[in-house]
Amino acid sequence: MIIDCHGHYTTAPKELEDYRKRQIAGLKEATQVATKGSLKISDDQIRESLENAQLKIQRERGTDLTIFSPRAGGMGHHIGNATTSQHWSETCNELIHRVCTLYPQNFVGVCQLPQSPGVAPKNCIPELERCVNEFGMIGCNLNPDPSGGYWTDPPLTDKWWYPVYEKLVEIDVPAMVHVSASCNPNFHFTGAHYINADTTAFMQFITSDLFKDFPTLKFIIPHGGGAVPYHWGRYRGLAQDMGRPPLKELLLNNVFFDTCVYHLPGIELLLKVIPADNILFASEVVGAVRGIDPETGYYYDDTKRYIDAIGWLSAADREKIFHGNVRKVYSRFAARRGHQ
Amino acid sequence: MIIDCHGHYTTAPKELEDYRKRQIAGLKEATQVATKGSLKISDDQIRESLENAQLKIQRERGTDLTIFSPRAGGMGHHIGNATTSQHWSETCNELIHRVCTLYPQNFVGVCQLPQSPGVAPKNCIPELERCVNEFGMIGCNLNPDPSGGYWTDPPLTDKWWYPVYEKLVEIDVPAMVHVSASCNPNFHFTGAHYINADTTAFMQFITSDLFKDFPTLKFIIPHGGGAVPYHWGRYRGLAQDMGRPPLKELLLNNVFFDTCVYHLPGIELLLKVIPADNILFASEVVGAVRGIDPETGYYYDDTKRYIDAIGWLSAADREKIFHGNVRKVYSRFAARRGHQ
Repeated sequence: MIIDCHGHYTTAPKELEDYRKRQIAGLKEATQVATKGSLKISDDQIRESLENAQLKIQRERGTDLTIFSPRAGGMGHHIGNATTSQHWSETCNELIHRVCTLYPQNFVGVCQLPQSPGVAPKNCIPELERCVNEFGMIGCNLNPDPSGGYWTDPPLTDKWWYPVYEKLVEIDVPAMVHVSASCNPNFHFTGAHYINADTTAFMQFITSDLFKDFPTLKFIIPHGGGAVPYHWGRYRGLAQDMGRPPLKELLLNNVFFDTCVYHLPGIELLLKVIPADNILFASEVVGAVRGIDPETGYYYDDTKRYIDAIGWLSAADREKIFHGNVRKVYSRFAARRGHQ
Repeated sequence: MIIDCHGHYTTAPKELEDYRKRQIAGLKEATQVATKGSLKISDDQIRESLENAQLKIQRERGTDLTIFSPRAGGMGHHIGNATTSQHWSETCNELIHRVCTLYPQNFVGVCQLPQSPGVAPKNCIPELERCVNEFGMIGCNLNPDPSGGYWTDPPLTDKWWYPVYEKLVEIDVPAMVHVSASCNPNFHFTGAHYINADTTAFMQFITSDLFKDFPTLKFIIPHGGGAVPYHWGRYRGLAQDMGRPPLKELLLNNVFFDTCVYHLPGIELLLKVIPADNILFASEVVGAVRGIDPETGYYYDDTKRYIDAIGWLSAADREKIFHGNVRKVYSRFAARRGHQ
């Protein structure tokens, strides 16, 4: 079985975008009380949006199932206020739930959280619980920078975030560290902001005792861990210079990387330096890069091909990466599948 | 000959730090006009600060010469105002000039620029010219985020920076893209802010026509190019999706990476995906990581060992990386050496 742990609903019917546009337009009318409003999308529209995209790709590439969440670039936590974010997150999560209900064999849900810059993350707990308990979602995306590129909230290791971690531990749900669009012109979102956030979060984890406080808390750092595996020597050395424990001991029970790295040498490096126990297969389709690599003739984001091409990877490690680790990290995955 | 293109004076006598402390303390006294003040360090103190550090390492590792600049983490462009930065940069650059005068065979200078957040970069031109014309320096460090982690100034591709680029092109001097300390608690400086800035700058270059406007402008992106080589497929794909030219054509006449990557698999990846013409040897000693890697028994930052260990690297490419490319990128290098 092959599970892709990182897919976003980037192909949602345009009614979703229209909904968001109305919501943003409404922000200008300060006298009006914000209402959630409604989103009208038919089941057929949902099917159509997936059949020629994510589902087609699953079939073509031989992926069995995708752990699926709302479009990351669309979360836009910096837009509006906490209420804006609440309504928008609920709407996006409800749509993901519909996808997973229509295609229970193909998708399992992960939710977006109603974060807002400067607002205590604990306000996300009700929506998190709703998605997990009512919708059967198995994870959440946690944005380390709700400001969208100005990094004005505290680091992920600050007590500011602890109420969310307490809940994640209690309900046994992992978080993927995932920023959204950047409103800072310095950062291209998929080319800089995403990768920087991955790197930043990892370094935050090195300098803190977060995992002493939460020994069972689990994070997935997407996009192959940002810059981390490439600079693995730097991170081992920095931890050592600071008198921290070796990285394996310090955080590899809690931090996992996905395989969203879009060329063979990058995947080779990832599999060489990071233990197979800490790597989860992912491709982020339909996502950041949509073209065909003229050097190989295949899609850049067909990450399964790169893994398949690595002859020295043992069968046991391959199994872990393709599905075994998902069952370990997303502990609700098995229950969810059994339920169906 | 082996030239290390990336060394900082991290071991300067503590009088330099004392000078900086006085300067910062003076900022609190708003009624006082800031004066440059003076720095008293003897030649013997300079010698002592280097003999058991950079010079010892050069001898031990067989590096002939280091392209040397003030401590990057110390630039602190976010502290005080433009005058603070002017005085501090002048003082640091003068000290580098003394180092290069005392050890002309071992060090060639690169200057820090008196940047300040929100202040037009063109104010750096007089100090840049002084360092190049009077001190014989061959490059500069350009901070893409003088705010120290809040990224409040425009991207490097904005016209905001053009006066500096016009001058760099005119005097034929390259810039190393190098941030300084981070005052944003989200970013560890050497573990996140440095690497993120490298990645960010590269992505800015992809999305702009900067090198159409300045075909001979040259940037060195340090720390192995941040996350870029590891995600080379992502960057090739993003450029392609955006309808940009192939990366080679778009920016590899203008953008170069150093080899400050502190483990063999990282260096292997770098040399595998980036053309040898675009790689410059560097170790950043005495720098970000100072310990010995228990897995190898050698210093993490002994990057020459990793390059030496790569059997498939041709002799011609090795020469380019160790010194040939320096002569091409730092076109004043040869003149400077001839002068001595």
